[in-house]
Amino acid sequence: MSTIQQNLEQHNAEYASQFTKGHLALPPAKKYLVLTCMDARIDPAAAFGIDLGDAHVIRNAGASARDALRSIIISEQLLGTREIILIKHTGCGMLTFQNEDAHGIVKKNLGDAAAKKIEGLDFLPFPDLEQAVRDDVEFLKSVETVPKDVTVSGWVYEVESGKVRQVV
Amino acid sequence: MSTIQQNLEQHNAEYASQFTKGHLALPPAKKYLVLTCMDARIDPAAAFGIDLGDAHVIRNAGASARDALRSIIISEQLLGTREIILIKHTGCGMLTFQNEDAHGIVKKNLGDAAAKKIEGLDFLPFPDLEQAVRDDVEFLKSVETVPKDVTVSGWVYEVESGKVRQVV
Repeated sequence: MSTIQQNLEQHNAEYASQFTKGHLALPPAKKYLVLTCMDARIDPAAAFGIDLGDAHVIRNAGASARDALRSIIISEQLLGTREIILIKHTGCGMLTFQNEDAHGIVKKNLGDAAAKKIEGLDFLPFPDLEQAVRDDVEFLKSVETVPKDVTVSGWVYEVESGKVRQVV
Repeated sequence: MSTIQQNLEQHNAEYASQFTKGHLALPPAKKYLVLTCMDARIDPAAAFGIDLGDAHVIRNAGASARDALRSIIISEQLLGTREIILIKHTGCGMLTFQNEDAHGIVKKNLGDAAAKKIEGLDFLPFPDLEQAVRDDVEFLKSVETVPKDVTVSGWVYEVESGKVRQVV
């Protein structure tokens, strides 16, 4: 067992010993979802005030709405959420490279077969943070598979200060 | 501003007022990633012992490894993580429907144009929880774009008890 797996088991044993929320229902109680980045410096429950059971939390590289669409459809259509809070963040890794860089690194590190396997994959990097928030909100408001009455807002989280601010 | 947006602003103001971690680096300090479900009953930082800055956290409907592959490649190849902890959970929504059900609901709720737009989309439901964990671990260990020396383990989180247990 790796050190990381041991850390998981030890901390989870403490968590479970004080756990009192085994009765919560499957659908999010407050009927919303938060879409944010996988970045290690974000703790959505603490930073965004999400109590256990209240909201779906979707996370991927860059908080991409396109990449999250399968999950968003399931959240809205099968589990009844009615509001989307999209939060990208300062210092995001997706601001630091372009598709050709990522494909080049995969080819160098993993070889031609791996590079070939993901030929044409869009890693969904973006050059401008606030524009990326606006673009993703626009996408969510226009895509046929998200109902028009779902509320969508876009935010930036500052990893330097712990603050969120609304963009759109 | 919606009630949910107000809740976000209020709780974040408290969080930011006590925030002391603005110095953390972009790459995860402990070089691992956790892939788990978007389910509202999971708080990864608390339940899995993840300190701020230590690990990427990817979340989607069902903790699907295939769906997360773009993010996983970025995490491993561009940001240096070397271990994947995959955690699915009891009571998962993905155990409760099949692709044809989800497509039928979209068609009924959103109409033919929306249904047509996602024709053939695999929502990635699964009928057996532990088998789904084993299948996803097998996928991650065999896919060309994840290096062979990345450690992969698969776990189940029990939403009823707060406990995790290793499957593979």
